[in-house]
Formats: sequence, structure tokens, C-alpha cells
Amino acid sequence: MSENSNHMSPEEFRRNGYAVIEWIARYMEEVGEYPVMSRVSPGEILDALPAAAPDHGSKDVLPILKDMDEIILPGITHWASPKFFAYFPSNASPPAILGDLMSSGLGVQGMLWVTSPAATELEIRMMDWLATLLQLPKRFHSGGNGGGVIQDSASSSVLCAILAARERVTQGQSNREGLSGTQPLTAYSSTEAHSSIEKGLRIAGIGSQGLRKVGVDEQFSIDLVALRAQIEADIAAGFRPFFVSATLGSTSSGAFDSVVGLGALCQEYDLWLHVDAAMFGTAAACPEYRWIHEGLELADSYCFNPHKWMLTNFDCCAFWVADRKDLIGALGIHPDYLQNRATDSGDVTDYRDWQIPLGRRFRALKLWFVLRTYGVEGIQRVVREHVGLTQMFAELVCAAPAFELCAPHPFNLVCFRLRGGDTENRQLMEALNDSGALYLSHTTLNDQFVLRFCVGQWATEECHVQEAWTRICEFAASVQSTAS
Amino acid sequence: MSENSNHMSPEEFRRNGYAVIEWIARYMEEVGEYPVMSRVSPGEILDALPAAAPDHGSKDVLPILKDMDEIILPGITHWASPKFFAYFPSNASPPAILGDLMSSGLGVQGMLWVTSPAATELEIRMMDWLATLLQLPKRFHSGGNGGGVIQDSASSSVLCAILAARERVTQGQSNREGLSGTQPLTAYSSTEAHSSIEKGLRIAGIGSQGLRKVGVDEQFSIDLVALRAQIEADIAAGFRPFFVSATLGSTSSGAFDSVVGLGALCQEYDLWLHVDAAMFGTAAACPEYRWIHEGLELADSYCFNPHKWMLTNFDCCAFWVADRKDLIGALGIHPDYLQNRATDSGDVTDYRDWQIPLGRRFRALKLWFVLRTYGVEGIQRVVREHVGLTQMFAELVCAAPAFELCAPHPFNLVCFRLRGGDTENRQLMEALNDSGALYLSHTTLNDQFVLRFCVGQWATEECHVQEAWTRICEFAASVQSTAS
Repeated sequence: MSENSNHMSPEEFRRNGYAVIEWIARYMEEVGEYPVMSRVSPGEILDALPAAAPDHGSKDVLPILKDMDEIILPGITHWASPKFFAYFPSNASPPAILGDLMSSGLGVQGMLWVTSPAATELEIRMMDWLATLLQLPKRFHSGGNGGGVIQDSASSSVLCAILAARERVTQGQSNREGLSGTQPLTAYSSTEAHSSIEKGLRIAGIGSQGLRKVGVDEQFSIDLVALRAQIEADIAAGFRPFFVSATLGSTSSGAFDSVVGLGALCQEYDLWLHVDAAMFGTAAACPEYRWIHEGLELADSYCFNPHKWMLTNFDCCAFWVADRKDLIGALGIHPDYLQNRATDSGDVTDYRDWQIPLGRRFRALKLWFVLRTYGVEGIQRVVREHVGLTQMFAELVCAAPAFELCAPHPFNLVCFRLRGGDTENRQLMEALNDSGALYLSHTTLNDQFVLRFCVGQWATEECHVQEAWTRICEFAASVQSTAS
Repeated sequence: MSENSNHMSPEEFRRNGYAVIEWIARYMEEVGEYPVMSRVSPGEILDALPAAAPDHGSKDVLPILKDMDEIILPGITHWASPKFFAYFPSNASPPAILGDLMSSGLGVQGMLWVTSPAATELEIRMMDWLATLLQLPKRFHSGGNGGGVIQDSASSSVLCAILAARERVTQGQSNREGLSGTQPLTAYSSTEAHSSIEKGLRIAGIGSQGLRKVGVDEQFSIDLVALRAQIEADIAAGFRPFFVSATLGSTSSGAFDSVVGLGALCQEYDLWLHVDAAMFGTAAACPEYRWIHEGLELADSYCFNPHKWMLTNFDCCAFWVADRKDLIGALGIHPDYLQNRATDSGDVTDYRDWQIPLGRRFRALKLWFVLRTYGVEGIQRVVREHVGLTQMFAELVCAAPAFELCAPHPFNLVCFRLRGGDTENRQLMEALNDSGALYLSHTTLNDQFVLRFCVGQWATEECHVQEAWTRICEFAASVQSTAS
């Protein structure tokens, strides 16, 4: 490829690539100094960008990097900041960035085994590595009937689980004939479960009303007695219960359902049990936290997100099923133009049949880079450091008379609030976020506005948590003096 | 971050990053020499990988790069090879790789406007750039009721279109109550349409039987008379027709439906018209090819894949709707923990409501890098070069008595076959692919096994097409002499 070509030559790519690597390295060095939440107004970035693509291109990346600094960076809310304590983290650790770069560079599309055997087989191996790392039940490993696959998100995983369960309970009728004219299906989760379950049920044609949101106890865990009563009532009313989603660490407060209790109920009523450990599954890398998975051998499907706490950049949700035939039965479709000898042999996995889209990136590479760079020990160390910092933060809250803790906090999420009204707490959050000094988010627990503080960004250290607490106290004093 | 830390320091990232860039640049230089289709056997890569993650990590990327060479590369089917003529391309052009790297480096998760305004607003702007580049109807631009969003794939786009259409026709009932007990819905496409439509209808609870696959004419275009008759018959039988998917360039043979004809029918019967131009939409960057979009002002949704022909690496499917309220009505869900002032103001776009998953990567960056690097002119040049090479190839086929063309080939896909039986044609394909000299795929047209030859990889030049034709002729002679 000549330098006069339309395309960057490998040499031009090298030069530009070094510049982008350098830009990112500098970003890593400086991100802790930026205001965490972007301060732009709606439309500001849009207006700063030309209305149309340039007629003539340029193979020099430097003008784009200049615009990254001047136009894009002010519009970034810095998930990479060590002062990011909002939502759950989305970790782009250095090896994950490099693994993703490798995936982009190879540019393979792994819909079928044959379209790049390494993409499929590295993924199978990485899913087994993760299953071993978390000590997941044998049934999820690739050796037997089960297996794992990388999905883009826990939302897509729960949708796939719903579809596999729907396929199983209707014995294929839902895929063939649709749901019109069938017995109405009902699914179950706690009121604290993630919104993706309801969204998945809508997509699957079961509807919001097909989801029974069962109440929780004072730990925000699903009430098993109420769940049983609801299932019984639904059966009596002519519904067909088919699916339960258990939450191991709710988004709102990090609450854990009892998989042991749910598993027994699901066996009794022949329900699919999906377990969503999107954020906190990573904790099970440490033996002392493996209790979170007690009862998991009763689950039909399970997911957690390496793209949250396990240092791997979005998107990377690890999803397992105990019996892959239900999943493939729900999602497999085989047009002639994708027929090939390897598929026909039955000896290979074609991951197109395990997911909603047909095409897929080589996402296993970033997991491979992360797990080789950190090792088991390194992942454990990150988990323990974050849990330690979070417990330190919880003790600071606990010792401060103006504040109260609002939920159990066994891992790296603390729900707390200023003693006072919702208005003061909302003001406190907005003042903190507007200050740029840190970024946290909120939820509602027991009808109260509650602050969420999650320590999960890879670069967060004790100084950042201490500094955050200092700022929280300062702003709280200011809010309270204004209120009084 | 010290060098003793668990994490790579920015300096270590820089050093490792340069090594990965260098690896990819070398890959670009050498990929044309590799056998295109991987030659490994099932399980070979899997067996070459350790059974479990290492206990202790290493921050040096070089051992991983060594394994990339020794373990992974043999298992790669090289989509980046200029000799890749199979399926449709998945282009990872140099600027796309760099844009994707930037996205990984920033690591933002753009589910909400507030979680990085630049991620949302650059995407809005890029979708408008693309709409202008292809001269899409005004209704799809962001200024009015419509708008665009990046999906992972055309499969997800058609699923979103089905869900929006289902929501519109049931006036929200399907999301609220599900489909059980409702009038059965029916959807329409040609027999040549992509399998993702049937898969989407299964997912949406409408089922395979809800899809009427209407016959085609000798150009493989949907038969409008048969379609009207089917719609009338369905109405008479108590079904509710709701959705038509038009194909602008089928996967099998590149066949085009008449959007003008379909649009009129859809207006008459109040059906949602989705238009799938996944591969060939890119052609409309050139004024002389914009006829493909005639009638598009009658469509409710449209998609094409920059990750196929427009030089942008997977995943990047550009999806537009004429009225975003149907889409948001179908996919919007608003848990309290994601509530924020910007969303409440109504002044911003939250792309979580436009897609299946909640989370999302900053994919607009790679489009920005690609469009700035190539410019309008550069994209047009690539399209014209590929179409030119394809027409050259078609002429070679046409002039060779042993071969026949099997379908119209206005752009960059040629369907052809050896005059003879399916067995010889299959043998020819397998011999060519096994040789490593090129990679092509097949389809079935008029019940015959047909070879597909698609010129769409960015580095493909005339020499590669000439060389491919030489090999095809050589292997054909060998297959024919064996058969006779």
C-alpha cells in the first residue's frame, strides 16, 4: 500500500497508532485531575461538530487528537477516574485496552467456528478459566452439557435466559407459533431486581404484567414465602409460571437473594432459575467470598460482568447455561449461506446460536490479556483492596452522627444518607457531582432517597476514598446550614 | 501508580501499547500471505491453551504476543486478507482500529446522556453525517421526529424495528400484557430475506409461523402481487399484518426489493416498513448508486452496516427510525437508580432507550475516525474501486464457457457456478478454500449450489481478484477432470 493510497499504510498506521497510545497513556496520567462528571450543556458538543463529513480526508491522526482534547474531553464523564463512585464501574484496565486493540486489529467476525476457530475456542477456554476462577458448579463448564459465552451485557443475558426458558416450557411452540393463543406465562423476581428483567419479558412478548415483582425482607432479599404464595395463586388463576431471576447483588443496594431457597422452589415448580451476579460475581474470585454462590448448582443460567469489577472493558458479560440445548434451541437458525462442513460435523461450537445478533467480535482476547496480566492473585488483590476501602468508608459514615447507613454492605457498595429529608440528600448529591471532585449516584430504598458509593474503579486508592469522604462532609455541612 | 503495582503504569501501558501497535502493523503487512481460511482442526486451539488462568500475572505483553503468533494466528480465518471474498466483508481499516482503541482507552459507558454527553452527541452527529452521505430522506435526520443510533448488528436492528412496530400496532398492549390472548400478528419478507428477520420474530414472541416468506421474481425481488394476496388472505383469516422487511441487497445474491412498491402497500395496509441495506447501503455514498434508496421516504426504519463495506470494524450497524417515539415506547424503561436531571429535562437523548442492552460503548468514535480519514471522496473511491473489480470479475466469469453467472451483480457480489452439478461446485469451493489462496462462500439459488464472490475488503486490489480468478479456473479444471 503506497503512501499515496486512500488507505493508511502499515507505516502510517504505526505512526498514528503510537500517537493514540500516547494520548491514552497521558489520559491515564491526568484523568484523576479532571472534573469527574461532564459539565457541558445539552447540545454543546453537537454544536461544536461540523454538520457534515469532510469531502476530503486526512491520514494524519493528530488533528483528530486535537479535537479529542478540545471538543470530546469536556463532554466525557470520566468512568476511568479514580474518583468515580457512581453506578457500578466500567473498568478499562490497561491490559483490557490492549486486548481490545488486538481484537480490532485482527478484525475477525466469529459468528461461526469456521470464520475463526481461535475466536470460538479462546472464548470457550476463557469461560472455563472464569468458571474455575469463581469456582462455579461443574455443570457450567464446557466439558458437559453446559457452557459459557460472552454477551454484551447482563440485559442481553437475561433476555437469552428468558428465551431459553420460554422455549423449554413451551416445548418449542413459542418459537414456532408465537405466544398468541398460548397459556400466559409468568416470571418472578424481587422488587429490587434489575429493570432488564422486565425489559426482557417485554421483548419476549410476555409483557410487564407477566412479571411478578415479589416483596423483600429488611435485607432487601426476596421473600420466599410471598414468592411461593404468588406462584400458587398464578397457577390457580391459569397462568404458567416459568422463570425466576435471582439477584446476587442488586443494582440499587447490593442485596442478595437466597439461591438455595429459590433453587428448591424452582425445582418444585419446574421453573428456570437465572442468577444475575452482574456486579458482585467477581468477588467469588476470593475463597472467603464464595458463599455468594451457595446453591448455584440449582441454577439453569448465571451471569456476571467482567466489564464491571473484573478489569475488562465494556462489553464483556460472562453468561453460562447448565444445558446449552435449551439456549441453542431458542436462538439457533441456520440459513443455507452459512452452512459449512465444521458445523455439519457437530464437532464445533457456533456462537451465533448462543446470542441475539449473528455477528460477533473477538472479545475473548481482552479477557485473556486481563487474566494473564493480573493472574488469579491480582484479581483477588483488587477485590480485597476495593472491599477494604469500602468497609473503611462505611465505618466513616457509621461514625458520623449526621449520616446513616441504609443497607448491608458486604462488598464494595455503600448505601447511605444524610439524616434528614430527600431534598437535602438530593442537594448533597448534586452539589458533589457538580463540584467535579467525585461522582456518585443514588437510589430509592424504603421510599427514601439514598446515596450510592461504589469503590470499583481500578485506579482508586485510599487517598481517593478519604478525599471523597472529606468532600461529602464539607458539602453536607453546607447543605444542612442552608436547610436550617 | 508505581511499577510495583498490580496494575500497568501509564509508562508500562505505553511500552506494551507500542508493541501491540507494532504487532498489528506487521499483521497488516503480512496478512495477504497467510492461508485465508484457518486450517486447524476442532479442539486444536483449545488444547493448546492452559486449563486455568495463571496464579501469578505478568505485566509484560511480549509473552502474550508470542502466543498470538504461535497459538492464535493459526486459528484465525483472515477477514483482513485482501484475498477474503467470502460472506460479506468485516472491514477493520486502520482508522477504525484507532477509533476503537480510543473508545477502549476512554472506557466510558454511554447508556445515558449524562454518563458521557460526548458519546451521545458525537453519535447523533455521526448518524447525521451518514444520513447526509447516503442522502437518506430528511425524516431520518435528527432534526425532526426521527433519528439514528448505532446497533451492534442488522439482526438487532430488525429486532428493534419489529418491537417498535409491535408496540405501534398493539398500542402498547404487547409490552404491558404480552401477546398471549391477542390477535396473532403477521410479518412479511421475501424468501431471500435474511434469517435475522425470522429470528427476531421468534424472539418477539410472534414465531416463525408469523413470518410469511413471499416468493420472488427472476431477479430475486419480492413478488408484490403475491405479497398483496398474502396480506389479504391473512386479514381474511383473522391475522393482523403489521410488519414488512424489505431487502436492499440480499445476503444470498445481492437482490433488491422494490421499496417504492412495498412502501405503497405498507401505507395502504398500515404496516411498518423496515428496510435492510446492511451490505449495499454504503453504495449510496456515490450519486450514481443512490437509486437503491428510491422510495425510502416511505420507510419507518432503515439500516446499513458501516462494519461491512464502510471500512469500520465490527460492531457498527447504523439504524434509523422515522419516528423515534415508537422505538422509545418499545424499549424505554426507567429505573429510579438511573434517574437524573438531564433525562428529566427532556432535552437530551438517552440511547439506552433505543436498543436491547442497557450499557453501550462509545462506538461513534470509530465512525468519526473513519469519516475524517477517508472523507466523502475516499469512501466513494473505495466503493467505485470495489464495484469496478467485481464487474471485471463478472466479465471473466461471463467469458469463460465452463462457468455461468447466476444472479444480477450491480455492485460487489457475484453469484456464479461451474456448469455442472452441485457436487462439482461444492468440491470446487472446498478445494479453493482448503488451498488457502482465497476464501469464498456459497448460497443456494433456484435450488442450485452457487458460489459467492464478494469484493469488499479494503486492501483488495486488482491483482488479488486476477489471482483469485486464475486459481478458480485451475481448480475448476481439476474438479472437472476428476468428475469426468
